[in-house]
Amino acid sequence: MPVTPDADIEITGYNWVPPFAAGFVRDLRARWFCEEVGLPYRQRLISVMDKPADWRSEQPFGQVPVLRDGEIHLFESGAILLHLAEKTGRLLPAAGQARADVLSWLFSAYNSVEPVQFELTAIEVFNSDKEWARLRRPEVQKNLHKRHKALGEALAHRDWLGGDFSIADIAMVSVLRSSAPLDALGNHPTLTAYVERGTARPAFQRALADQMAGFDDRFAPKREKA
Amino acid sequence: MPVTPDADIEITGYNWVPPFAAGFVRDLRARWFCEEVGLPYRQRLISVMDKPADWRSEQPFGQVPVLRDGEIHLFESGAILLHLAEKTGRLLPAAGQARADVLSWLFSAYNSVEPVQFELTAIEVFNSDKEWARLRRPEVQKNLHKRHKALGEALAHRDWLGGDFSIADIAMVSVLRSSAPLDALGNHPTLTAYVERGTARPAFQRALADQMAGFDDRFAPKREKA
Repeated sequence: MPVTPDADIEITGYNWVPPFAAGFVRDLRARWFCEEVGLPYRQRLISVMDKPADWRSEQPFGQVPVLRDGEIHLFESGAILLHLAEKTGRLLPAAGQARADVLSWLFSAYNSVEPVQFELTAIEVFNSDKEWARLRRPEVQKNLHKRHKALGEALAHRDWLGGDFSIADIAMVSVLRSSAPLDALGNHPTLTAYVERGTARPAFQRALADQMAGFDDRFAPKREKA
Repeated sequence: MPVTPDADIEITGYNWVPPFAAGFVRDLRARWFCEEVGLPYRQRLISVMDKPADWRSEQPFGQVPVLRDGEIHLFESGAILLHLAEKTGRLLPAAGQARADVLSWLFSAYNSVEPVQFELTAIEVFNSDKEWARLRRPEVQKNLHKRHKALGEALAHRDWLGGDFSIADIAMVSVLRSSAPLDALGNHPTLTAYVERGTARPAFQRALADQMAGFDDRFAPKREKA
């Protein structure tokens, strides 16, 4: 239901990405929120290789997602999650320690966990055959392991970071599942279980299916092999 | 005035850090907010080498800052800025596109600019003599340059990211000024001017002075040279 052509909410994603990125593009986080709360949205799928001429006026760093909510426009998936939560009053407590917990964990996903994972992705996905990657890999793996260990301890006695499922979990599960192909979660059964719990949610599954359905090989660059 | 022993707000920072980190520890971002709006806070300065035994129950990743606001507790400087802005109704518009802009730029500081800078810091500050750093440096410099260029274009016709000065500027100026010692801003006069504009604010100067005043060489590790 959430993907609805005449919805007020518009989420911009890509119409094609290389196979390693399919299912991981960050409009998924916005879609997931909409599926959790039954908020209809329309999708606008642009070319990753040939973006609209004025794309940087919508997304200064040239990326996705972008959200339109009527006349309001946002970029950065973290800001989009926060906006949608405030708009709907869902997945973010209104006040008190419960809200403080969700905000703290939301930012930790974006600034304490994902940046280390960006470094490991640069090594494993984009530069795995480079000499610097071979030399640097052990230290980055260790740094990410430390962050995962800390997070695993926080999750030892609860299902979700803020107690109830929240936008912090949408962000953190999304970050962590990107680590899975890097074999970085193997030593952290608590995190593996957390990611499984998150990705088993029907809303996540629907969001993922809708993102995948939006990718069309007709939009693949001509020089790519079929 | 904001540093006030019996204030309801407590900001935790360090009582000593190595010289390269002095003036850059991230409790500065919370102090800066308090100085901008005249919000009194008390400081709690812990040892970076010998943290309280249960520190990870307050900050799961073992870092600072941590904020206490009466009974409420937060970690992650981005979450702290957001909490303080919501509490006081200052430096974050209440609704509409103005709020959306501040949230978008706030997250871009934490997730689109700072992570690339973390990578360059790892190279220039912690591993400058390593072979992998020599091999990796040009690509990370290029990546950071791209983010800076995008940000410079966004700032070409305005003083502050959201129009008026906001928590997004506290975050982004704080991130960018950490780049200055890395010589990464040299090619971006718009950003250099933005950082100068931000750091010239009396509130920033007071926050910086108070952070620096909190560092005490008596707490330096014994093995460090004086």
